[in-house]
Amino acid sequence: MKILVLGADGYTGFPLSVNLAYEGHDVVGSDNLMRRILSDKSVTPIESPRRRMEAAGIESRPLDITDRKRLKWLLEDRDFDAIANLAQIPSAPYSMVDADTAWKAQRNNILGSLNLYWIIKELDLDVHVVQLATMGEYGTPDQPIPEGFLEDGRPAPKEPGSFYHCSKANTTTNTLFASRNWGIPTTEIYQGIVYGVSVFEDMDERLLTRFDVDEVWGTVVNRFTAQAVTGHPLTVYGEGGQERAMLSIKDCVQCLTLALENPPDPGTDDYPYRAINQFDDSYRVRELAEWFNELYDAEIKHVENPRNEDDTDHYYEPEREKLEELGYEPTQPLRDEVEETARIVEEYADRVPDDLSPETEWD
Amino acid sequence: MKILVLGADGYTGFPLSVNLAYEGHDVVGSDNLMRRILSDKSVTPIESPRRRMEAAGIESRPLDITDRKRLKWLLEDRDFDAIANLAQIPSAPYSMVDADTAWKAQRNNILGSLNLYWIIKELDLDVHVVQLATMGEYGTPDQPIPEGFLEDGRPAPKEPGSFYHCSKANTTTNTLFASRNWGIPTTEIYQGIVYGVSVFEDMDERLLTRFDVDEVWGTVVNRFTAQAVTGHPLTVYGEGGQERAMLSIKDCVQCLTLALENPPDPGTDDYPYRAINQFDDSYRVRELAEWFNELYDAEIKHVENPRNEDDTDHYYEPEREKLEELGYEPTQPLRDEVEETARIVEEYADRVPDDLSPETEWD
Repeated sequence: MKILVLGADGYTGFPLSVNLAYEGHDVVGSDNLMRRILSDKSVTPIESPRRRMEAAGIESRPLDITDRKRLKWLLEDRDFDAIANLAQIPSAPYSMVDADTAWKAQRNNILGSLNLYWIIKELDLDVHVVQLATMGEYGTPDQPIPEGFLEDGRPAPKEPGSFYHCSKANTTTNTLFASRNWGIPTTEIYQGIVYGVSVFEDMDERLLTRFDVDEVWGTVVNRFTAQAVTGHPLTVYGEGGQERAMLSIKDCVQCLTLALENPPDPGTDDYPYRAINQFDDSYRVRELAEWFNELYDAEIKHVENPRNEDDTDHYYEPEREKLEELGYEPTQPLRDEVEETARIVEEYADRVPDDLSPETEWD
Repeated sequence: MKILVLGADGYTGFPLSVNLAYEGHDVVGSDNLMRRILSDKSVTPIESPRRRMEAAGIESRPLDITDRKRLKWLLEDRDFDAIANLAQIPSAPYSMVDADTAWKAQRNNILGSLNLYWIIKELDLDVHVVQLATMGEYGTPDQPIPEGFLEDGRPAPKEPGSFYHCSKANTTTNTLFASRNWGIPTTEIYQGIVYGVSVFEDMDERLLTRFDVDEVWGTVVNRFTAQAVTGHPLTVYGEGGQERAMLSIKDCVQCLTLALENPPDPGTDDYPYRAINQFDDSYRVRELAEWFNELYDAEIKHVENPRNEDDTDHYYEPEREKLEELGYEPTQPLRDEVEETARIVEEYADRVPDDLSPETEWD
């Protein structure tokens, strides 16, 4: 298949592109390098975009998804079978820093995706879009989280907890409308929090993906891993009762590949629009910390929660059926995945920032 | 009260500003004049923004809501008690013309409102925001439409039917989050389709508001009125079974004034965020046409529906409780309101465009 990955230089976008190329697909990788520009603190040293894409046999086409003309030229020029839209600013804290970062996150995520759908419509392309959403759009309601839709067919209510999460819920609204209105085959991936760094065995070092652990770009398991490895206390926000859906980067790449290779089936309810809750399991932050404590003897430090969220032991029950139907099988349990990640992070322990305390406050 | 009206040169924004000034409030009216720039086809001749605001005792401050610096200067400078955010591009067809108009509608509506909330937060203002949403966000589900929230407290599912309606649903998502996260007292007005042109008795002609009847800016009752008055056939899209919540511009101004004068009550569930479904009643398009036919002997002409919507006689049951609690009393039935509007439109019949057929297709 001819596949375009938008956001191919990102944390998940790069290993996804590598995996697709490895499986024999014809891959074009586009990125505006925003992640590198906004943060140069990846614990893993990463190669230049051009060199690492070259090493993986990916064609590199620098591009900003909000640049309608260039995106249109690229789509006009090639005959893609599928597009993975991972060109998203993926950080809740980033979107809560100030008016400018909130604007940038929403402009890129909402309007960038809007561009993509309009171009597909205007060029009348026959292409499957895999749009990256997040489990965070649903919030933490006191009842089971459905897979995209309520039983009566209406879209699931969204309770995003940051302007980043709002940007994703808003993109979901646009995506559903564009897909159904124009008949664009689309898979919306409500993705859990991704953790880990290792995707391939015996990997060429140039193919390492970025690994962020700071308060803005790092997610909780990756931060704990870095803190455990470097002997710093594990910073738990508030009581640590937050429960979230998660999956390893290995499984994330596996799932996105499955979604790209298996577009929605015409004649089913999933056509043209399909919603998938993509996660392995859900974990409570405090439980993760306790487990890191046992394994690495890392101290647990409760810090004031900078976010407005329920950090007591709240209800959380997300549904997940579509992934199994696609053939997803969890690669390995979180515990093993973290140990593998820790071994890699240890090599670069001197690159872990000293202070990983939260600075961006929601209030 | 000191009140800022954003979008004070618009169809509803102008008479709202006039009414607020008339009731003794200290009103600043801001607008970027986008409506005038995008369409100069108002059937009623309208005065220059400066002159008509002057005539009504409104202070005019030209401003684009997406211009963060100028908006911040204005809010820093004054001590507003309330802000009505009507600075929205209000047309579904406009948002479906092409990639550029869709982008502009979403950028203005979503990011403009985002700006407003961030400025209120950064300046730590104690101000009540009345944010204009639309009943169209809910779509036409096969069950009653709640007032903002499901019974379990989750936000009502949104099924917008154009990129304009998506922009409003997306703004609602941002508004709810901003209001609750920062404690900004906010009233979200899910407004029905507004019709009519007359708001005040014995009105100074300079205070006439714009009246649009073309396919992009005109709504259905206003289009029918113009067609009936000028002897053109009433253009019904498809079967005409579309049922929608509506209210007269007189009632719209009454309701928005009530909302502005009565902010959400601390200590209630409505604080800081309150959602109001704002309409008088719901009407089916074909029934409206039949009634215009009886009254004005206007021919009914079914044209191909340019929109992707259910135009058969579908279920439609929106709830409305909050308006009554605020003291809303419908001014007069649609029938009387239309007759009053028709008398005014007759004076300007030569300004009604000949062809009001739909051109913008959803597909």
